[in-house]
Amino acid sequence: MKQIPERSVTEILDIRRKYLNPNMSVSYQQPLKIVRGSGQYLFDDNGIRYLDMVNNVCHVGHCHPRVVAAGTEQMRTLNTNTRYLHDLLAEYTLRLTAAFPDPLEVCFFACTGTEANDLAIRLARAATGGRDIICVEHAYHGHSPALIDISPYKHGSAGGEGAPEYVRTAPVPDIYRGLYREDDQHAGQHYAQHVSNICDSLDNSDRKLSAFFCESLLGCGGQIILPDGYLKAAYQAVRQHGGICVADEVQVGFGRVGTHMWAFEQQGVVPDIVTLGKPIGNGHPISAVITTRKIADAFMNGMEYFNTFGGNPVSCAIGLAVMDVIDEEHLQQHALATGGYLLEQLYQLQPAHELIGDVRGAGLFIGIELVSDRHSRQPAANRAEEVVEKMRHRGVLLSTDGPDHNVIKIKPPMPFNKADADLFLTEFDAVLNAIG
Amino acid sequence: MKQIPERSVTEILDIRRKYLNPNMSVSYQQPLKIVRGSGQYLFDDNGIRYLDMVNNVCHVGHCHPRVVAAGTEQMRTLNTNTRYLHDLLAEYTLRLTAAFPDPLEVCFFACTGTEANDLAIRLARAATGGRDIICVEHAYHGHSPALIDISPYKHGSAGGEGAPEYVRTAPVPDIYRGLYREDDQHAGQHYAQHVSNICDSLDNSDRKLSAFFCESLLGCGGQIILPDGYLKAAYQAVRQHGGICVADEVQVGFGRVGTHMWAFEQQGVVPDIVTLGKPIGNGHPISAVITTRKIADAFMNGMEYFNTFGGNPVSCAIGLAVMDVIDEEHLQQHALATGGYLLEQLYQLQPAHELIGDVRGAGLFIGIELVSDRHSRQPAANRAEEVVEKMRHRGVLLSTDGPDHNVIKIKPPMPFNKADADLFLTEFDAVLNAIG
Repeated sequence: MKQIPERSVTEILDIRRKYLNPNMSVSYQQPLKIVRGSGQYLFDDNGIRYLDMVNNVCHVGHCHPRVVAAGTEQMRTLNTNTRYLHDLLAEYTLRLTAAFPDPLEVCFFACTGTEANDLAIRLARAATGGRDIICVEHAYHGHSPALIDISPYKHGSAGGEGAPEYVRTAPVPDIYRGLYREDDQHAGQHYAQHVSNICDSLDNSDRKLSAFFCESLLGCGGQIILPDGYLKAAYQAVRQHGGICVADEVQVGFGRVGTHMWAFEQQGVVPDIVTLGKPIGNGHPISAVITTRKIADAFMNGMEYFNTFGGNPVSCAIGLAVMDVIDEEHLQQHALATGGYLLEQLYQLQPAHELIGDVRGAGLFIGIELVSDRHSRQPAANRAEEVVEKMRHRGVLLSTDGPDHNVIKIKPPMPFNKADADLFLTEFDAVLNAIG
Repeated sequence: MKQIPERSVTEILDIRRKYLNPNMSVSYQQPLKIVRGSGQYLFDDNGIRYLDMVNNVCHVGHCHPRVVAAGTEQMRTLNTNTRYLHDLLAEYTLRLTAAFPDPLEVCFFACTGTEANDLAIRLARAATGGRDIICVEHAYHGHSPALIDISPYKHGSAGGEGAPEYVRTAPVPDIYRGLYREDDQHAGQHYAQHVSNICDSLDNSDRKLSAFFCESLLGCGGQIILPDGYLKAAYQAVRQHGGICVADEVQVGFGRVGTHMWAFEQQGVVPDIVTLGKPIGNGHPISAVITTRKIADAFMNGMEYFNTFGGNPVSCAIGLAVMDVIDEEHLQQHALATGGYLLEQLYQLQPAHELIGDVRGAGLFIGIELVSDRHSRQPAANRAEEVVEKMRHRGVLLSTDGPDHNVIKIKPPMPFNKADADLFLTEFDAVLNAIG
């Protein structure tokens, strides 16, 4: 391989500015040149180690040797498309579908979460004959034209043009900041009632519902855990009106929530369509859609769905290795224990720091919402950014999210352990003390 | 790595039928279980070698050791996203943009041709404020909801719902079967006049043009070489009406046409946006969009374009290796020589076989159109399929395309050489003789 020139941070930033997508952000005021990854750690060009608490994509750990070996071996042997038969495609299909409850049994392979959600739209429309979609406030489902339409996080913010006529938006089921709060024991049902009302209003118009899209935990919405009963009641309403229920697990699937393999299981529901992405290939571009026989059959209208790279043998080898590692290293159970520990410690830390308005999480998916005043819950966006910047200089990588940019987002590679949690807690406590 | 069970063709087909996307096709009546690839050859589970004349994705050859080594090395070291700085992203950006004429200088990375074309739609809309798109009859640009809208190959066929109101379709510039034929020296201009007329009709309505999408050579349209002057005249009309010209090079870029690196160069034009995919990563899911500073700046409206896997270090290492191999093995020049030789031999073969209605090509992108009658040019779809099936049993992989499914499609991995061409010609001649 040709030698790649080593460039300084300044030189790389200059090349990015001149020749690369200007809408691509760089993390941190003082950007990091990351050159190596291992497990839950990243290393910069000065050999400094960072505890990675934000890159959920490299799910089983950066450069996991088992995953690298599987990918390498298959890259050497064959990488072609699904128009030929291959053992790896068959095996991966069996493994992946076996991880879902009935009647989720038919699998489609694609390359990105965006492709998966775009396909889910097509499946839902084919199955219902409807076109309209209900999404949730602040939701993000992808960057294609169709997915920006159903992502208020995009179409409702800078540069966005609002929701098109076929999209209806339900209030975000956020019990800390939303319409119904932690003091409402039936908040889940109350939020779901809005979904039901939208269904009713569609019935009373000349429009027709196709699908309700909801992330099983809300990422860009601010690391939000759905209130009990929300999906159950919302799904019931959607189905009564002939709609399809889509669970977007692109961010949160594959054991991250600890108690289950899939976050929708925590809500006691079975979706009609589940979309998978990010962690599925530990960084390799893989995605999948899992659905029912009935919906898959309705999609058989004569139009082929062929995805050039989707389901190729290299992707299947890598996807299988990721599932093997999750099993063998008991990463789901590990996420439950480690996430539970971290959450408990954060609860204990909260009284000492006025800034910590809310702490919430499921397994290794945790949000810390910063406020300037606990009573008014005024978002403290600048403080959240300050914390993230200061933590970076103390060797811990985090980021912020939520509509007010005041939620510290925690979703580390799954090998993240108790010692890492302790390191984070010590530094976090110190940073909060320092900024007052 | 766990042992993957070896399954028979019947078992694999059964698993596909039960658990996989039912709209995913399998090549050949007697499907192939391909287990290994090397250069321009694929090998089945019985060790039988096939000359691959159809998989343009593995552009520099199946499992090219240089590409495998680059991918392997980087997978072992780091695979993360573009929010950190990396030498490989900088280097690949420089290399890729340097391969384009001015003013094409800004690069966006994504994972698939579909993602690239979806992004091109967004760029064109941001730059023009328009929404409408002109596409070409039988065109295929991808499988997302938005791209099916602009792909008559999809929305105009089985299961399709036709073109939506924002899409206008120009006649396919096919000088063998279209409105203006090989006897019309100005066929290119005459076809382009239809694009111009559509622009005029949009101006006289309350609609606004955003872009003209055209593949630089038409793949699904039937391996069609654009007539001289077509893009020049069409681009001129589109630009006069404030539209953006998008060249879809997802199928044909990276030297395949032999005379140039990009097929649009054969038409003497410079597009405003170029989309790249399939061959760019030799099978690894990579895609890119190249555009002008002006369009990239217009896209800076506050909405971030972040692609989770796009531009990651592994993809960049692989993309760079592919460009290195094209250069060092002189694959573009090789495609010119080998493709020219094959085309010449096919012209010589044509008089002996009534079935061969037309032969056309550019470099290693060749179409052989079969007809049951040379005068009426009646498409011989069944014969084309029969030829492809018989060739498979003689160890040569081909497929058919075009709206009448009567065009034999040739787009082999680029190492395909004269000896391979001779092998193909011998078998092809024999098959044509056998079926009469």
